[in-house]
Amino acid sequence: MNKAILEGLHNSIKPFIHKTPVLTSRQINQISETQVYFKCENFQKMGAFKMRGATNAILNLTDEQKKNGVVTHSSGNFAQALSLAAKQQDVKAYIVMPKNAPKVKKEAVKDYGGIIIESESTPIAREEMAEKVKIEKKATFIHPSNDDNVIYGQGTAAIELLNEHPDLDFIFTPVGGGGLVAGTILAARYFSKKCKVIGGEPYEADDAYRSLISGKIKYNSTTNTIADGLRTYLGDRNFPIIKEGIHAIERVTEQQIVEAMKLVWERMKIVIEPSSAVALAALLNRKEEIKNKKIGVIISGGNVDLSNLPF
Amino acid sequence: MNKAILEGLHNSIKPFIHKTPVLTSRQINQISETQVYFKCENFQKMGAFKMRGATNAILNLTDEQKKNGVVTHSSGNFAQALSLAAKQQDVKAYIVMPKNAPKVKKEAVKDYGGIIIESESTPIAREEMAEKVKIEKKATFIHPSNDDNVIYGQGTAAIELLNEHPDLDFIFTPVGGGGLVAGTILAARYFSKKCKVIGGEPYEADDAYRSLISGKIKYNSTTNTIADGLRTYLGDRNFPIIKEGIHAIERVTEQQIVEAMKLVWERMKIVIEPSSAVALAALLNRKEEIKNKKIGVIISGGNVDLSNLPF
Repeated sequence: MNKAILEGLHNSIKPFIHKTPVLTSRQINQISETQVYFKCENFQKMGAFKMRGATNAILNLTDEQKKNGVVTHSSGNFAQALSLAAKQQDVKAYIVMPKNAPKVKKEAVKDYGGIIIESESTPIAREEMAEKVKIEKKATFIHPSNDDNVIYGQGTAAIELLNEHPDLDFIFTPVGGGGLVAGTILAARYFSKKCKVIGGEPYEADDAYRSLISGKIKYNSTTNTIADGLRTYLGDRNFPIIKEGIHAIERVTEQQIVEAMKLVWERMKIVIEPSSAVALAALLNRKEEIKNKKIGVIISGGNVDLSNLPF
Repeated sequence: MNKAILEGLHNSIKPFIHKTPVLTSRQINQISETQVYFKCENFQKMGAFKMRGATNAILNLTDEQKKNGVVTHSSGNFAQALSLAAKQQDVKAYIVMPKNAPKVKKEAVKDYGGIIIESESTPIAREEMAEKVKIEKKATFIHPSNDDNVIYGQGTAAIELLNEHPDLDFIFTPVGGGGLVAGTILAARYFSKKCKVIGGEPYEADDAYRSLISGKIKYNSTTNTIADGLRTYLGDRNFPIIKEGIHAIERVTEQQIVEAMKLVWERMKIVIEPSSAVALAALLNRKEEIKNKKIGVIISGGNVDLSNLPF
């Protein structure tokens, strides 16, 4: 990987994604005693950064692969992202979703043109079903976070942020499956001289924190966190990048997540999902270290179930 | 009034207000079968368009008046707006608020430097108390909506919108005390050749609708609407402008308000208050008339009590 390759792929996905705005808040600057630049992927197409990685993955298919379509297993933002990214290139997207996935999520996938394949709700059942679709349809499997093209695509949010603010000292991102944080680490390496990346993770799903300590990928036995996008675990493609390049993982409590989310909704008047609030909560936990610095925060998405808010 | 005067006062308030963004939504365009341009005053200083009128009122004080301060009665956005606008010019702002006003609203006024004077909660008690403060402090009374300088200031949101999109066919605004809609009518008159203004009003507080029919200012006997910013009534300064210049008032149900609010939160990922949703709800009620037209909507504010949402 190098800067020119990242720039090239960023240029190829640009026509199919939004260049999202960077917002600031006087009040959050005061509270944090820093200057914070929020990269607002909640305004991205389909409402989350996942659109970037999904688009890059689709654009990197061969013509043969495009003809046969792609398959993934996800009931979250990646399901919608892959559906829309595939549709934009006239590619079929098979989305394996658990039978009991919320109707609103299934509807969203259908709206974006995804073909839903139902499975039982265990992780193993979902993976087996994806494997089956892959064989039967000759579809290309695209993992939501543990895929090189997905990782590189997710990094383009930080590239845009660093192009606008080259002198950031830190970027905070949430850590779930590891695609966003790994992509951000690569972006910081090639598009900044000094920017360090800190991952925010819920205590209730701190697999990445424990993985870094042990040097091996760890899993969560339970994931009782409101940050539903962060319940997944790292993989062999993104963990080496994270291990080598991350400055720290900062864990946050459920209360801190809800408070950070409320702060952004109330002060910035934007809708962000709980997973996004994890990055700001992590920032607020590290005030000492980052005082008077320039900080980027990736607001990962804004897809929230309004009938089930924590306020 | 003429275009040059409006331009001049817009230039004078510019250093003290935000030029708010104009956002669009592919999905809302599809639903409405129009092109909608949302002027996002929820991103205005203190979270609402009221900052514009308050600033213009303060800037038009004489030096003598500035020395003695200003007084208003409001427990809503104008209380905060006048406090902040006054503070920015080193002017004292006395804010008459009912004793039982929510603590969070009192705190917000204090944060912006306003001096709270408590009164009983009836409209008459509030007005009497404001009169008392006016006499005792020699303060200048500034009405939240029925004041020429306030009306002209509120019109600058539409001026900015029309400068960016001169070919709008309609602008929709909510109608409460009448300051915003009257200012918008003046802006459309002097900054556009064809733009018509339509006001949105809750059925539950349709005093402006009835006032237009009867030709005289009418009042609401009850105001059981979630759009708490629209429970007030018109005045002798703004009613003549509205009567002469408005294209129509469109009434909306409480359910339509909540649905429009949810649509914006979910699709546009921005926090808007119920009063703002009234303008979009009115637009959606008039699909036939405005089909394929270019429409402006003033999103009036984003100050919402997150612990008391209608979803």
